[in-house]
Amino acid sequence: MMEIGSLKILMSELAKLPGIGARSAERIAFYLLRASQEDAFRLAEAIRGLKENVRHCERCFNLTESALCEICSNPRRDPQVVVVVEQPKDVISLEATGLIQGTYHVLMGHLSPLEGIEPGDLTIDALLDRVGAQKVNEVILATNPTVEGDGTALYLHSLLQAQGVKVSRLARGLAVGSQLEYATRAMLESAIDGRTAM
Amino acid sequence: MMEIGSLKILMSELAKLPGIGARSAERIAFYLLRASQEDAFRLAEAIRGLKENVRHCERCFNLTESALCEICSNPRRDPQVVVVVEQPKDVISLEATGLIQGTYHVLMGHLSPLEGIEPGDLTIDALLDRVGAQKVNEVILATNPTVEGDGTALYLHSLLQAQGVKVSRLARGLAVGSQLEYATRAMLESAIDGRTAM
Repeated sequence: MMEIGSLKILMSELAKLPGIGARSAERIAFYLLRASQEDAFRLAEAIRGLKENVRHCERCFNLTESALCEICSNPRRDPQVVVVVEQPKDVISLEATGLIQGTYHVLMGHLSPLEGIEPGDLTIDALLDRVGAQKVNEVILATNPTVEGDGTALYLHSLLQAQGVKVSRLARGLAVGSQLEYATRAMLESAIDGRTAM
Repeated sequence: MMEIGSLKILMSELAKLPGIGARSAERIAFYLLRASQEDAFRLAEAIRGLKENVRHCERCFNLTESALCEICSNPRRDPQVVVVVEQPKDVISLEATGLIQGTYHVLMGHLSPLEGIEPGDLTIDALLDRVGAQKVNEVILATNPTVEGDGTALYLHSLLQAQGVKVSRLARGLAVGSQLEYATRAMLESAIDGRTAM
């Protein structure tokens, strides 16, 4: 086997990325070998730029390149409505709907006693501070509809109720456009429990 | 949609890589966001290192980090036997068999009139120079068993014959371990044409 250190190093670094196996790593490394130096360096610089420029919003922990994120610094967004999500990706998904006029709060994860993730590991204290300081009217809990997401929502609900703020949670039920025959038991249960009058 | 320039730039650079779609690019970008700065920079450096350190062997055009590749600079390899391949990856495949005692010559592609790839675009002149200067006994053509690979082999054969060197080509036929029912017509044809006495 040929010993080309730089090639082996790159393939092993690429293989650490999610969804990239040994074969894909080899394919990408050889693609970069053939690519112009300019193109390859642009990728290297984009990786450095990401780590150097992107940080968390001081208020809501969303991703940003400034002190406050685009949403927190937008005067047309309502700071009295706060949508609580687990991770920055969830902000992107909700923003894509165009239906949120309020602001966000990113927990940076969910409670998980089994994995040792406790309230102090999330941005819960900062959320409670915001609710007090910004005169928040409504907190919309948009954690994932999973065991951990639901547990986190229940925990937050108990804390926020004590502060006298209105707390709601995203509706759950059948996925629009899906088919009943493929729905899981949990989806059907939530759809039956949450049935609405017609 | 959130505007985080560094994130968008990285996702668009990642999406240019082979086998990486928009979803994988997003997944890798968010993985790198969560990764330590050290880990992310190690990947960026590996890309720079590849482009800065890896070049083509002056003699055979295989990949190397020195003037001559590991194989050309190995005194135990026979310079009078030259295995001609299309690309550096093919050297890796053949070396993995441990059956080649000779050296290689990487064409850096194959002839393809349709794509405008002509003899002058490949390293054919350098191959002919080597055959003359190194007193080469045998050239083994190991181009791909494709239309372009076969065309390139035929072209090289005519040039090399004129130099009085022995020219052979890798055998073709049924893939060992494969099943007849899945063999293509071309595979069966080559197996029948090349049948050997038992």
